[in-house]
Amino acid sequence: MDTDKLTVLTIKYLKEQNRPALQDMTEELHPYDLAELYKALPEKHHFKFLTFITSKDIADLVMELEPDMQKEVLQKLGIEKSSKIMDIMDNDDLADLLSEISQEKLEEYLSAMQTDESKTVQHLMSYPPETAGGIMTNEFVWIRDYYTVRDAVDKFKSFAEYTRNIYYLYVIDEHKKLVGVVSYRDLLLADMNEKIFDIMFNRVISVAADTDQEDVAQIIQRYDFLAVPVVDKQNVLKGIVTVDDVIDVVLEEAQEDIEKLSASGKDIDFQTKAYVASYRRLPWLILLLFIGLISGSILDSFEDTLEQVVALIFFMPMIAGMTGNTGTQSLAVVVRGLVTNETDRKTILKLVWREFKVGIIIGLVCGLLVFFVATFWQSIMFGVVVGISLLATLIIGTMAGTIIPLILYKIGLDPAVASGPLITTLNDIFSLLIYFGIATNLMHMLI
Amino acid sequence: MDTDKLTVLTIKYLKEQNRPALQDMTEELHPYDLAELYKALPEKHHFKFLTFITSKDIADLVMELEPDMQKEVLQKLGIEKSSKIMDIMDNDDLADLLSEISQEKLEEYLSAMQTDESKTVQHLMSYPPETAGGIMTNEFVWIRDYYTVRDAVDKFKSFAEYTRNIYYLYVIDEHKKLVGVVSYRDLLLADMNEKIFDIMFNRVISVAADTDQEDVAQIIQRYDFLAVPVVDKQNVLKGIVTVDDVIDVVLEEAQEDIEKLSASGKDIDFQTKAYVASYRRLPWLILLLFIGLISGSILDSFEDTLEQVVALIFFMPMIAGMTGNTGTQSLAVVVRGLVTNETDRKTILKLVWREFKVGIIIGLVCGLLVFFVATFWQSIMFGVVVGISLLATLIIGTMAGTIIPLILYKIGLDPAVASGPLITTLNDIFSLLIYFGIATNLMHMLI
Repeated sequence: MDTDKLTVLTIKYLKEQNRPALQDMTEELHPYDLAELYKALPEKHHFKFLTFITSKDIADLVMELEPDMQKEVLQKLGIEKSSKIMDIMDNDDLADLLSEISQEKLEEYLSAMQTDESKTVQHLMSYPPETAGGIMTNEFVWIRDYYTVRDAVDKFKSFAEYTRNIYYLYVIDEHKKLVGVVSYRDLLLADMNEKIFDIMFNRVISVAADTDQEDVAQIIQRYDFLAVPVVDKQNVLKGIVTVDDVIDVVLEEAQEDIEKLSASGKDIDFQTKAYVASYRRLPWLILLLFIGLISGSILDSFEDTLEQVVALIFFMPMIAGMTGNTGTQSLAVVVRGLVTNETDRKTILKLVWREFKVGIIIGLVCGLLVFFVATFWQSIMFGVVVGISLLATLIIGTMAGTIIPLILYKIGLDPAVASGPLITTLNDIFSLLIYFGIATNLMHMLI
Repeated sequence: MDTDKLTVLTIKYLKEQNRPALQDMTEELHPYDLAELYKALPEKHHFKFLTFITSKDIADLVMELEPDMQKEVLQKLGIEKSSKIMDIMDNDDLADLLSEISQEKLEEYLSAMQTDESKTVQHLMSYPPETAGGIMTNEFVWIRDYYTVRDAVDKFKSFAEYTRNIYYLYVIDEHKKLVGVVSYRDLLLADMNEKIFDIMFNRVISVAADTDQEDVAQIIQRYDFLAVPVVDKQNVLKGIVTVDDVIDVVLEEAQEDIEKLSASGKDIDFQTKAYVASYRRLPWLILLLFIGLISGSILDSFEDTLEQVVALIFFMPMIAGMTGNTGTQSLAVVVRGLVTNETDRKTILKLVWREFKVGIIIGLVCGLLVFFVATFWQSIMFGVVVGISLLATLIIGTMAGTIIPLILYKIGLDPAVASGPLITTLNDIFSLLIYFGIATNLMHMLI
C-alpha cells in the first residue's frame, strides 16, 4: 500500500473516530513509512493523529522526522506527553533531538523525564557531534564471561526492548572493562550449557569516544561489522555505534565532499526555500566575485599588450578555463583520497610528484593541440605563445588543485575552503598572469 | 598488534617452517587485517605464505583483495587449488572475481569447481552489475512457516557455514514464494516450541533482481535493515543483499557523483600511475579545450566592440567565472538530489522554479555589488552594462546548471556527461554572448 492510499485511509479513520483501526494500521508500518504518512497528512489532522496512535508509534515517528518537524510534534504534544515519548526514544536519537532545542525548553524536558533516562541522555549529549561518542547509543546489553549461554539468553530476553538495533552482546569483567563479544548467531549456534567464556570472541576491535565518526565508519566498513563498541581510556564500555548510523555518516561525509567541490553551501536540497538557498550560496559567490575582479585588474595592467594584439583575448577564456578544469580534477582526487588514505609525509609527497607528472603530460598534449589550432587560426608565433602558455598554466593549475587543499588540510583549516570554484577562480588569476606575461615578453614576435 | 609487527612475526614463522604458529596467528585475524598483512609481506614470501595458511583463510584473504591481487593469488595457487578455494568463497564475491577473468580461464575454473557451486555462481554472474541481482548472494537459509522455533534453529545450525553475513531467516511457502522473515533476535526471544508462523514478520519488503543498486541501498538505509531479500516476478526468493555490501555501494555512488562534478575520470586514486591518470583525464580536457575555443571565436566576432572599449575585458573573467560558479552550485544540488529524491514531474518543476528564483536573488545581489564597483572603477554607464550583464548571466548560469543535468537524466543519457567543468565551460560561452551582446547594444553610452 503506497503513501497516498494510506493517507486517505488515515483521514477516514480519523473522521470516523476509529482509533483501533488506525492503531492496527500504524502498528504494521515501518518507522520510515509512518513518517512519510505523517508528512503526507494535511497539517490540520496532525494533532488528532498524534492523539490516536500509541506512544511507541509516536516515538518511532519522531526518530524518523527532520529536526524542524520533530520540534513541531513536541510542541503539539506538550511537555508532559513529550517527556513520556522521550523516555521510550532511542538515546542517541534523543540526544540529537535535544541538542537542537533551546536551553530553557531543554531543562523543562529533562526534568519531566524519568531520572535515569534524563541522566544517560545528558551524558550522551556531552560528547562532541561527529565523533564516536556523538553518534553512539548507550543502550546495550552486557554479560559476564562466566555466564552460560542460557544465562545470557535470559538476560537478553529481559532487556528485549533495549535490543532493537543491537546485534551483539558485550562481555565485561568485574571492572566493567570490555573483554569479549558474542553475536546473536554465536548464541543460536551454541549449546545452552556452554560458557560465554568458551564461545566469545576476545580480540574485540573498539574505538575511543573521541574517534572521528569517519574513522568509525571506516572500521565498520572494513570489517563488515554490524556495530563497534566505544570504550574509554580504561577500556570501560561506554556505548556502541551501529551500522545503520554508519550508513548515515557515509552519506553525510559524501555530501560534505560535494559541498567542498561545488562551494554550494551546506544543507541545500530539493525542498530548501529559494531565499534560504540563496542566502547559503551568496557568501561564496560574493567572495568569488571580488577574487574574480582581481583577474580584471591584472588585465588592466596588461592594457598596452592587449591594445596592440587584441587577438590575444581570443584564447584567454580557453586558457583560463582549462587551468580551472585541471585544478578541479586534481582537487577531486585529493578531497576524495583524504577520506580513505593515510596522510603521512611519504604518501603526500608521492601524490604531489604524481600530479606534477600528470600536469606535464596533459600540458604537453593540450599545448601541442592548441599550438596547431592557433597557428592555423592566427600565425605560427601565436601558436608558440598560446601553446607554451597552456603547457605552463596546466602544470601550475594541476599543482594548485593538489597543493592548496593539502596545505589547508595539514594546517588544520576546514578543507571546505578549498572548493572547486575557489580553485577555478584562483587558477583564472594564475593563468592570466602567465599567459599575458609570456605574450608581453614575446610581443615583438606577435606584431 | 599492528601490521608491521605481524609482518615481522610472519616472516619469522615462515623461515622457521612453523606452520602451526602461523595458522594460530592468521586464524585470529579479521579478513581485512589478513589482507593488509599479505599486502605488507614482501612478494617473495607470498607463495610460501599461501601454502602455510588454511583454505578458509585463503578464501577470506582473496575476498578482501583488489581484483589485480586476486588474480595474482589464483595464479600462484594453480587451477586445482584455486577451484577448491572458490568452492568456499562467498558466492557474490566469487561472481565478482570470475567476471574479471578471461573467458578461457573462467571455463577451466568452473569445470574444476564442484558442480553445484559452479552452477549457482554462473547463475549469479548472469545478473547485470549495479543491480540487486549483481550484488546479491544466493547463500541464505530458508524455513517453512509450520516449523517450530526449534526446527528453525536446528536447520540454522546445520547450515551454519552459509550464515556468516546473514542476519535473517526467510520463510517460504510450498511454491518457494517468500511469505515472511524472522530475525536472529526473534528466534532468541521466542520460546523453542512456538511456531514460526506466529513470530514471523509477514509484510516483507523485497526488491526485484533488476532493481538499481542505489535503490536497494536507499531501502536498507531508510528502514535500517541488515539485509533485503531479492525476489523474481512470482515472488520466489532468489537471494539477499546485505548491509555490508550496501555501504560499499553508497561509497561507490558518492565517488561517481564526485567524478561527475569534477570530470576527473573514473578510478583515479592516490596510487594511480601518472600516465594512467593523465590518460583518464585527457578525454575530458581535450573536449573542454575545443569548447573553450568557441568562446574565443565569440570574442573574435565582437572584435569591433572590443577594440573600441578595451576596458570591457576587465570584467570578462569575473562575469564568466561567476556564471560558472553558480552553475556548479546548482549542478551539485541536482546531482546529489537525484540520489535521494523522487523524480516525478511535480518535484522537478518545483526545483526548476526554485532555482529560477535563486538565480534572480543572487543575480540582483551580485549585480548590484558589481554595479558599484564598476561605476567607481570606470563610469556609471559601465556599472549599468556590467551589473545588468551579471544579473542576466547569473540567471542563465543557474538555469543551465539545473536544467542540463535534468535533461540528460530524463532522456536516459549518462548524467556524468553534465560534469562541473562542462557546465562551467558552457556557461563561459553563454556569459560572453550576453555580456558582449549587451555591451554592443549599449555601445553608444560607453564611448
